[in-house]
Amino acid sequence: MFVLSSPSGAGKTSITRALLKQNDDLTISVSATTRPRRPGEVNGQDYYFVDKDRFSEMIAQGAFLEHAEAFGNFYGTPREPVEAALAQGRDVVFDIEWQGTQQLAEIAREDLVTVFILPPSAQALADRLHKRAQDSEETIQYRLSKAADEITHYSEYDYVVINQDFDESLARVQTILDAERLKRHRLTGLSGFVRGLKDGL
Amino acid sequence: MFVLSSPSGAGKTSITRALLKQNDDLTISVSATTRPRRPGEVNGQDYYFVDKDRFSEMIAQGAFLEHAEAFGNFYGTPREPVEAALAQGRDVVFDIEWQGTQQLAEIAREDLVTVFILPPSAQALADRLHKRAQDSEETIQYRLSKAADEITHYSEYDYVVINQDFDESLARVQTILDAERLKRHRLTGLSGFVRGLKDGL
Repeated sequence: MFVLSSPSGAGKTSITRALLKQNDDLTISVSATTRPRRPGEVNGQDYYFVDKDRFSEMIAQGAFLEHAEAFGNFYGTPREPVEAALAQGRDVVFDIEWQGTQQLAEIAREDLVTVFILPPSAQALADRLHKRAQDSEETIQYRLSKAADEITHYSEYDYVVINQDFDESLARVQTILDAERLKRHRLTGLSGFVRGLKDGL
Repeated sequence: MFVLSSPSGAGKTSITRALLKQNDDLTISVSATTRPRRPGEVNGQDYYFVDKDRFSEMIAQGAFLEHAEAFGNFYGTPREPVEAALAQGRDVVFDIEWQGTQQLAEIAREDLVTVFILPPSAQALADRLHKRAQDSEETIQYRLSKAADEITHYSEYDYVVINQDFDESLARVQTILDAERLKRHRLTGLSGFVRGLKDGL
């Protein structure tokens, strides 16, 4: 379970998409959200867009691994697709906020690798939110003021990447993923391999 | 503190040397040993070659971070150069055995990253020891029988690399080093950076 978090606009979604493109063996966890669909977003690919009633129902059914409120909207990770992917031995990527990360950490600390992406400067973050041109000026100002709180949660993450240059940041996230896959406890079949080696010596 | 261990002949010394060549900012910890110098080995570069009396004296002086016996010879990590390098903020690489790794883990768990290198097969290990042509057939057989014990200690290490192909193994060790340097608690100046970012938002 590989988590990427960042304040809104710091680049986690672009990095997540590029990471998926270059790793066929990764599964993305598609979140459910009550926030309105933005232009270009595809239901079931970017998010599952649901209304508040449906979201509450899913909470009641225990259908979420984690869920949280941000900017007045609800976001949640559907449990079933994640558990199915993990059961098949696939690694799952989560593009979620710090609240969700805390909830995942409670249920799966051993299996979790967390990366926090920081913007290189306050100005760069403001520029990106403006360039994205998806939100009103009021929303952008609100996101920036929230970002000041969000970034303080970097201290709860295993790794930190300062997103100065997109390609470099992507390479760093890939490096973290590659290294974590070399952790002893994640190498499947290792104890059998060592037993065979020992018998041959 | 970056530790590479492996049974004798599995390739840790070659990988360590290549790693140092491609990372100017790494310092190697040169061990002291009582074992005889092999052809081509340079005192102060490959090892500090000392006699048993001098080695005992160094133990008594607390001059070692760790020391252990292997194959009837003593090996130890001089404390002073390591502490000096770390004080300068430099990362230090250790080419040591599992006994030494256990001792380092007792004094510096947080700062330690450990990698165990396994041979791809028993036959490959035997072939390498013969190809190296540094030891008598008797010593090689002894090393192989010891390797059977040594490899069981893979389970005490953070990462495992199966050394099938030298270049690939080197790349994996480099990946581990690069990723570990992106761990939050190792990024110097990060809390100040985040404070500045927060003030700007």
